[in-house]
Amino acid sequence: MKQRENSMEPDNVRSRESDSAYGSRTDSVRYKKTGKEEKVKVIPLGGLEQIGMNITAIEYGDSIIVIDCGMSFPEDDMLGIDIVLPDIAYLEENYSKVKGFVITHGHEDHIGAIPYVFRKINVPIYATRLTMALIEKKLEEREMLPHVKRKVVGYGQTVTLGDFRVEYIRTNHSIQDAAALAIYSPAGTIIHTGDFKVDYTPVYGDAIDLQRFAELGRKGVLALMCDSTNAERPGHTMSESSVGAILNRIFAENTGARLIIATFASNVDRVQQIINSAAKHGRKVCLEGRSMINVIGTAVELGYVTDPSRTLISVDEIQNYAPERTVLVTTGSQGESMAALSRMAANLHKRIKIMPGDVILFSSHPIPGNEKAVSNVINELSEIGAKVLFEDAHVSGHACQEDIKLIYALVQPKYAIPVHGEMRHLRAQASLAAGMGVPKENILILHSGDVLELSEERAGIIGKVQTGQILVDGLGVGDVGNIVIRDRQRLAADGVIVVVLTLEARSNRLLSGPDIVSRGFVYVREAEELMAEAQRTVEDAVDWCLDRHISDWSRIKGEIKDALSAFVWKRTMRRPMILPIIMEAYL
Amino acid sequence: MKQRENSMEPDNVRSRESDSAYGSRTDSVRYKKTGKEEKVKVIPLGGLEQIGMNITAIEYGDSIIVIDCGMSFPEDDMLGIDIVLPDIAYLEENYSKVKGFVITHGHEDHIGAIPYVFRKINVPIYATRLTMALIEKKLEEREMLPHVKRKVVGYGQTVTLGDFRVEYIRTNHSIQDAAALAIYSPAGTIIHTGDFKVDYTPVYGDAIDLQRFAELGRKGVLALMCDSTNAERPGHTMSESSVGAILNRIFAENTGARLIIATFASNVDRVQQIINSAAKHGRKVCLEGRSMINVIGTAVELGYVTDPSRTLISVDEIQNYAPERTVLVTTGSQGESMAALSRMAANLHKRIKIMPGDVILFSSHPIPGNEKAVSNVINELSEIGAKVLFEDAHVSGHACQEDIKLIYALVQPKYAIPVHGEMRHLRAQASLAAGMGVPKENILILHSGDVLELSEERAGIIGKVQTGQILVDGLGVGDVGNIVIRDRQRLAADGVIVVVLTLEARSNRLLSGPDIVSRGFVYVREAEELMAEAQRTVEDAVDWCLDRHISDWSRIKGEIKDALSAFVWKRTMRRPMILPIIMEAYL
Repeated sequence: MKQRENSMEPDNVRSRESDSAYGSRTDSVRYKKTGKEEKVKVIPLGGLEQIGMNITAIEYGDSIIVIDCGMSFPEDDMLGIDIVLPDIAYLEENYSKVKGFVITHGHEDHIGAIPYVFRKINVPIYATRLTMALIEKKLEEREMLPHVKRKVVGYGQTVTLGDFRVEYIRTNHSIQDAAALAIYSPAGTIIHTGDFKVDYTPVYGDAIDLQRFAELGRKGVLALMCDSTNAERPGHTMSESSVGAILNRIFAENTGARLIIATFASNVDRVQQIINSAAKHGRKVCLEGRSMINVIGTAVELGYVTDPSRTLISVDEIQNYAPERTVLVTTGSQGESMAALSRMAANLHKRIKIMPGDVILFSSHPIPGNEKAVSNVINELSEIGAKVLFEDAHVSGHACQEDIKLIYALVQPKYAIPVHGEMRHLRAQASLAAGMGVPKENILILHSGDVLELSEERAGIIGKVQTGQILVDGLGVGDVGNIVIRDRQRLAADGVIVVVLTLEARSNRLLSGPDIVSRGFVYVREAEELMAEAQRTVEDAVDWCLDRHISDWSRIKGEIKDALSAFVWKRTMRRPMILPIIMEAYL
Repeated sequence: MKQRENSMEPDNVRSRESDSAYGSRTDSVRYKKTGKEEKVKVIPLGGLEQIGMNITAIEYGDSIIVIDCGMSFPEDDMLGIDIVLPDIAYLEENYSKVKGFVITHGHEDHIGAIPYVFRKINVPIYATRLTMALIEKKLEEREMLPHVKRKVVGYGQTVTLGDFRVEYIRTNHSIQDAAALAIYSPAGTIIHTGDFKVDYTPVYGDAIDLQRFAELGRKGVLALMCDSTNAERPGHTMSESSVGAILNRIFAENTGARLIIATFASNVDRVQQIINSAAKHGRKVCLEGRSMINVIGTAVELGYVTDPSRTLISVDEIQNYAPERTVLVTTGSQGESMAALSRMAANLHKRIKIMPGDVILFSSHPIPGNEKAVSNVINELSEIGAKVLFEDAHVSGHACQEDIKLIYALVQPKYAIPVHGEMRHLRAQASLAAGMGVPKENILILHSGDVLELSEERAGIIGKVQTGQILVDGLGVGDVGNIVIRDRQRLAADGVIVVVLTLEARSNRLLSGPDIVSRGFVYVREAEELMAEAQRTVEDAVDWCLDRHISDWSRIKGEIKDALSAFVWKRTMRRPMILPIIMEAYL
């Protein structure tokens, strides 16, 4: 990867330690001495009602900062859609106020929309080192790198952005360099946890900076915006390093076979632990899958992954080693059809063929909705004769209930604003917050687009801004909307019947047709009688119209549609899309 | 429900106890005295490679018996399909040999295909009492009841079917009256477990007849066909009655709210336990959802559910009681969009409106693939302000690993044939069988259509018969095949572009068009430029053909298709279906 271009770095970052004005600058109390009721607005533009597409604006006076800029994956009914982006109309309308994007960590649901959003809005981006490297990879791929100002921020450092100052606080997550944000405003301090867990023994780096959470809590925190992903799960989230022992045991128990481990490309620490186990057991590690090679490559370059025993080899080198001396680390842990493991299982992978006896480990849990796809891959692997392990070689990257309670205990916010999650998760965190003593009226469950105004005195939703989901299909961003999706759903369920006829322009005389063509409706060769009757139905409808000298085309189309859909429903109980086309010929 | 028509009962059922010839008749050893190598064939026509659509033929000489006759639900990529049926071509070809269907229990994946299959094949059906009542409901709905011979068989009773005798053995499952089958043939005894669990304390009836399994095992069992559904799960499956205690606690903890419990309509014992808890806590029970009312209604009529405290009320009566004095038992535990709970959550239910404070319990686990749908319903319920409980108020109806091992320990079969499950489950049971001492070469993992020939001397797959999935879409059975499904997938992903033109029949002169109409491709009003360019692309292609006096329509269509799809791919990276239609006019 190229060196970051320093000329593009804004100069508004101060270390907590080095900043002589630190004591007063980060003390939110200073802001509160104005006497009048200061208000700050929290405006989520995504990330509620779903897991993914996290983006939230924080606004005070003429300053807006934006936390994260993520994408999400399409729901099952968004047919043909590749990814989903947030609608940032509100930011475009208030472009002059937007001071910068502060990014919490490098996962797609927090950085994935940057290349799209930054075509419309170009303001500085702030992020920790690994996060920024992953953002830069995205920008580089689209040749946007020279045009976007960006600045790496360290833990404990503070960025001044208009009327805000934002401090980066160390947390743990399933990717390194994750941060919580303390956002200082004249109306008080807001803490946003980002995605986090409490890991006392992380694989890389240090544990979450609980002291800083406590310190800020002691000074007084207006609002806590806390990760809700695991708010339904009791207990504590296990340390990432606990997976290491399981991996070691699996390596020890399967010495005679090739090992194939599927995990998230972004779980750098997991890959580090696989490298550690491989070194210990004398195996070479081969990464497979584009995103795996990308992310881990970046992490290796920056020193987030170390490989002192030089276990890492390329896929070309793997043939030089006996299978039982290798371990493949691959994408596809979610059963994604185009990912490396799925292609291996379906015997579509160019270079790697699953062999009977191969041992496959899913070092991951299926994300809700992916269970079936994962199961299908497991069936294909089983069919070939590979041994699929069902060890629980995974821990979550998100805080469970007791961890969330710990953060509440340290921060003791006036207001609780659960974030990151579907409604069920937000409600679960609301219950936890209530249990931790936050008064019910101070627990605020928001919807995307809500404008929440907060002050020491009161909190309330004072308005609504435009939000939504911009669908990306191929090269098209936003050209597929509800109407197109509804059409696709209809086409998917029962296919289409096209009815065409040609009318002479002046006389309205039938020159040709009506002809019927269907796709996705029935197998026509085996339904000749049905199609012949459909043909007669349409002919009758057309004759009826022409006999009555009806020249209004929309009326004729309507008659065709009504007659044909009634016939089709009666005979098949299906509702294909019926598409009448009338052509006009001038003789 | 009407009384079963006894005239339709075949007379070939004997009780084990009452049959004087019992000792020798059910002794498989008798069959083995012929001296020559007797062979029996096992031909699964479905139920392998998937959970669902269970149907297996057992063949000896001129006798075929069929175990179960189930349907399955469509995979995600079977767009627009309602249910899936087995292809029974093999049975049709050998109709004269088919002596009867022996059904193990009353779940849809074991009885659901009967109304379709029995239009083609009409032979006697044998089943236990509740199972038969549920089959009869299906036949009655389609007015087929008078035409199908059927006979209720009790546990311990034996049916003679050609060269086979089939004994019904008591098991436990998530529906009552489940049975394993001991199939006596001249080649030896085959035991088929059906779906089963080992429940020492079932809610209704007695525990599985382990003694009979042991007795048969002692005499010598040729092959065991054992349920694999939970073969990956360690330990024992909990007793259904363990759910009762959890339900009681939930009733006790939520006295102030209306309770809504979602569970499987067919889980009669679960509903019994809810009735018991309701009686204890002074609530009325209202069933909601068509299949819930159907199945439980039948169970009540036959005495499988008792309601001594008269807790059951109809949905019309529910308004007469305070909400906290009622409990709704509803379908929709799998998030099915048309089920009662889903309609309530989406505020589409005519008579029941979810209210803030309602307490909702899912007394079920999501079947793999349904997790997301269930989660969506939970989110909608949470949004309304209902409290969704995450207690584990469910146990499985299938045997876990230790239970499966118990059956192997009792039966000690020569051959193990894992059934009911996807490849991963069959392999998991194969491992268990090997661990229980079945030699590896005697463990037979089959695919649907395999013809397995078994004898005391050898076992091997000697052929393949036609099998497959018949897709049901609306009223159409089998008129939607691979081509139609592939068209639907394409239409779903990127929509359709129809190109129409009218040519003068003799001169091949262009009279009208080419016109372009698209659906599900882009929102045309916001893509005017793209569509105008597409129009020009098509015009150029048509002009090119007509200039060259090309009169071969398929050639013209090909040119249009190639030009337009290349243009569309370049501009959008999408591949809509392109449907050129040429009309012919005689002037």
